[in-house]
Amino acid sequence: MSEHTVSAYDDELTAMAGKVAEMGGIAEKAFADAVSALVSQDLELAKATIKGDVRLDSLYNELEVKLIELIVRRQPMGQDLREITAATRIANDLERVGDLAKNVAKRVIAIDSDLQSKKLAIGVEHMTELALSQLKQVLDAYARKDAEAARRVQEADAEVDAIYTSIFRELLTYMMEDPRVITQCVHLLFCAKNIERIGDHATNIAENVYYMVTGERLPEDRAKVDETGAV
Amino acid sequence: MSEHTVSAYDDELTAMAGKVAEMGGIAEKAFADAVSALVSQDLELAKATIKGDVRLDSLYNELEVKLIELIVRRQPMGQDLREITAATRIANDLERVGDLAKNVAKRVIAIDSDLQSKKLAIGVEHMTELALSQLKQVLDAYARKDAEAARRVQEADAEVDAIYTSIFRELLTYMMEDPRVITQCVHLLFCAKNIERIGDHATNIAENVYYMVTGERLPEDRAKVDETGAV
Repeated sequence: MSEHTVSAYDDELTAMAGKVAEMGGIAEKAFADAVSALVSQDLELAKATIKGDVRLDSLYNELEVKLIELIVRRQPMGQDLREITAATRIANDLERVGDLAKNVAKRVIAIDSDLQSKKLAIGVEHMTELALSQLKQVLDAYARKDAEAARRVQEADAEVDAIYTSIFRELLTYMMEDPRVITQCVHLLFCAKNIERIGDHATNIAENVYYMVTGERLPEDRAKVDETGAV
Repeated sequence: MSEHTVSAYDDELTAMAGKVAEMGGIAEKAFADAVSALVSQDLELAKATIKGDVRLDSLYNELEVKLIELIVRRQPMGQDLREITAATRIANDLERVGDLAKNVAKRVIAIDSDLQSKKLAIGVEHMTELALSQLKQVLDAYARKDAEAARRVQEADAEVDAIYTSIFRELLTYMMEDPRVITQCVHLLFCAKNIERIGDHATNIAENVYYMVTGERLPEDRAKVDETGAV
């Protein structure tokens, strides 16, 4: 393979990783916007977040086509193949993060009233900060091809799950104490679940980054096993 | 390309579709088992369903690797490439149907008491029958490469969404009437949401079958647009 072809190939792999990073930035912003819209009951921001998800979906579809073309053209092996496969999977997780952010934004419109409890809002915000920082860290780990950083992200998911569980219990208590808040609390429960699932996608991405870099699978940890936990 | 190579290639594509069909059968059974476990509070069946999901995950991982190898080796174009891409996406949707069935099974264990309302159980069962028949029909459409049948599955998703919405409202009413059923109703809400999402995956599969057969995109219909509906 000539120098030129090789470098052209490297450029394609770099461009591919760049597209995934672009999707990551959009997914992060959608998630952050959806939760601030929720906490501040900002219907306009919620509507903008819902509209914005189309962009992430089309980026994903473009990228998927490009990656298959790349495989067909380059017939990659080993590390190159792992990088292309990881990009496909990570883009898929980011597209789903966008969907989950959109779900939260739709709940903002369904709730359409101030949150009954500042304490609850704080819980949801805290959970969001954690999940968002997980997402940022794993996208950095992907950009830097840092397997250890990816492993740390996987480990930290248990914390997001723990906050989710406490929010879940708190919401049930509010509902039992005051039937008038049941509808709002149910929407908040679904929001919290969506945020917890965003944390799970950060974990999936971490596992794909780790495999891409090392060729080894990260052992699934407790948090990951509980991904579909029943609370 | 020699006769032999061509027929070997056809065999590979047939084997690929067979693996997707196998995943489809397992996902259907997991879904049906999870809901009967829920309705009859059968903890053993619930646990078996949770354990069984591992099989679907490993089938998906094997298939994904096989499909990439196939693309690398055969460099497919046009219809062949569409069939391989569709298989990848449909397998991904089926793996997620398995996760959703597992979620329902985990809720059975969390509820761990008889359902308060037979009427509710009937609603959930009815929704399940519809979503399950959507899943069966779309897998048949995939096996027969029947674009029209796939289009009908997409159209019918609105009905699943409608039943979900009525169950959602009914559950809220129960909770407001009797705080003692709140915890159970919340778990049932999440179960109903998971079943509604299984219907959405049947719709995704329908869109991929339609594209695979025709090379054209099905216009997203109302039901699909509401996939992440806020109730």
